[in-house]
Amino acid sequence: MLVGDKHYRTVWMEGNIVRMINQIKLPHQFIIQDFLDYTQTALSIKDMYVRGAGAIGATAGYGIAQAALQAPDQRFHEYVNLAAEHIKQTRPTAQNLFYAVNRVLKKIENLEPAVARQEAVKEAQAIADDDANSCKKIGELGADLIKDGYKISTHCNAGWLAFVDWGSALSPIYQAKRQGKNVFVFVDETRPRSQGSKLTAWELVNEKIPHAVIVDNATGYYMKKGEIDLVIVGSDRIAINGDVANKIGTYSSAVVAKENNISFYVAAPTSTIDPNCPSGDQIPIEERHEDEVLVIEGLTVEGKEEKVRIAPKESCAKNPSFDVTPAKYITGIITEKGIFKPEELRNLF
Amino acid sequence: MLVGDKHYRTVWMEGNIVRMINQIKLPHQFIIQDFLDYTQTALSIKDMYVRGAGAIGATAGYGIAQAALQAPDQRFHEYVNLAAEHIKQTRPTAQNLFYAVNRVLKKIENLEPAVARQEAVKEAQAIADDDANSCKKIGELGADLIKDGYKISTHCNAGWLAFVDWGSALSPIYQAKRQGKNVFVFVDETRPRSQGSKLTAWELVNEKIPHAVIVDNATGYYMKKGEIDLVIVGSDRIAINGDVANKIGTYSSAVVAKENNISFYVAAPTSTIDPNCPSGDQIPIEERHEDEVLVIEGLTVEGKEEKVRIAPKESCAKNPSFDVTPAKYITGIITEKGIFKPEELRNLF
Repeated sequence: MLVGDKHYRTVWMEGNIVRMINQIKLPHQFIIQDFLDYTQTALSIKDMYVRGAGAIGATAGYGIAQAALQAPDQRFHEYVNLAAEHIKQTRPTAQNLFYAVNRVLKKIENLEPAVARQEAVKEAQAIADDDANSCKKIGELGADLIKDGYKISTHCNAGWLAFVDWGSALSPIYQAKRQGKNVFVFVDETRPRSQGSKLTAWELVNEKIPHAVIVDNATGYYMKKGEIDLVIVGSDRIAINGDVANKIGTYSSAVVAKENNISFYVAAPTSTIDPNCPSGDQIPIEERHEDEVLVIEGLTVEGKEEKVRIAPKESCAKNPSFDVTPAKYITGIITEKGIFKPEELRNLF
Repeated sequence: MLVGDKHYRTVWMEGNIVRMINQIKLPHQFIIQDFLDYTQTALSIKDMYVRGAGAIGATAGYGIAQAALQAPDQRFHEYVNLAAEHIKQTRPTAQNLFYAVNRVLKKIENLEPAVARQEAVKEAQAIADDDANSCKKIGELGADLIKDGYKISTHCNAGWLAFVDWGSALSPIYQAKRQGKNVFVFVDETRPRSQGSKLTAWELVNEKIPHAVIVDNATGYYMKKGEIDLVIVGSDRIAINGDVANKIGTYSSAVVAKENNISFYVAAPTSTIDPNCPSGDQIPIEERHEDEVLVIEGLTVEGKEEKVRIAPKESCAKNPSFDVTPAKYITGIITEKGIFKPEELRNLF
């Protein structure tokens, strides 16, 4: 998608170098960072230079391709398999990471080193392209839900930065804009890590889409006022019964949307659906460090990155990262294969 | 209430000096600040050293008492009336401010300067005492709703810092603790100004009540998990039909509480009820500066106060300060005169 007037993907490969947007520095600095070998690329995942299911998967695929390029002929497969183990350990709960690593490994498992190196790079490229194409398709299908003049609420960042290109929840908005529709986006800031303020707002600035950042507390206010026509959010994992795990706060947004008869859609590639997960009750919720709640990062007027503590030093915090929105609050799930009611997901498997 | 092991009120008068807790500096610094004459005291309201309906009212009353002490004999009433106009202009929407100023003026309107000065100080003191007593009564009545072991959610700061002592929403919690009940408080951080993290958490630390700060996004998660037994919030204004205006985010909390069959109580002195306001639709909602959303204040690790920007410099924000929770979501309203269903408020007038 656009940064300034130039098109970028979140992550890509040039020769044997993996290049990506350093998401830690956004929105205050736009930096393309180079990762010269697979151990550096593994660190880029672990240290969250890149985040979001699709983007992590593509990065992991490129990492294996780098390992293949680095691997000596005489112990090629041993070297690549060790690299794969190393990369898998960076974010142990990221489903797409395993998928991408295994997909490249499978492609090259019986090949001679010279051919395997070419095929590994091609397959990693295909993983990234598949992700971008799925997201684009989600956008094309989802754009039909958006009428001219719609005001749309979104939570967290399910834009192109979380994938390779286009994104999930924001992709229909980008497509609608290309179709000439006027849209306005209410961006939930999405405490505690403020991915709405930091990443979604930054994407919308660059795509020149009118928007306002609001505190998560204000979403219900605008819903009740009749100023929100549609909600689209992403998802980290979807159970086969249609329950959706997503960033903390999604559940409340869905409940208040339903109370106000506002359509609530989840946009995600079908790879996010876990057919082995019967319901949302089986999705474990990660509890992260309390400092994400008690301490906030940002930029001072002097342009210096700084962390500031909000609460008394004696206070503790609880910090669940995700919540589960039961299927009954969800109008539909926008995938690259179509828009489905939550109860229809079973038919896909 | 307690700060460390010593009892404080939010604001009080010693001789002709008004002393108060500087709430701008909380929770990082506890400073008692002196205001030597009525113009300084007026500034303390305008610049929000003191905030919250009850605390503003008491401060305004003391300000008039200071004016009476300062006023020259020969043009006593003229001087005091001019001071009253000055004080009234500090926070033009604060109902309690007008109430307090007018109450002191009325008490002294036909008195000779020497007597008027004594009576002004006594009346200002009575206003502060009345506020503290109302809040204490709210606590005693509200404590009956709290069972041993209850986990209670609250939003924003409706504690003693917003009044003279005890507070509204937190007063039942303080009373329950004194009755020997174990309670745990989920403190919504309450973006954008973080009065939950900054003020409510600080009060609870000092009263030694177990609590956790959570992002506003997480309240629904804990409600759905069954970890919240009761919600108590304050109010800025209550319409006669039982609709309640309070800090932005209260509405969403109430909707999600009802969805999960959790009792949702509003605690406020009867002075908060506006018998001339037929419903919440008539309550104007203040839209505040967008920087409250885009820029966050706190304390750096080096102990320096600092502001940091979260969002891209090109992004705008919308910042409604309050929302209206319709009466149908409210289980009851805890006042100093009893606990009422929203539809019973009419009977009080």
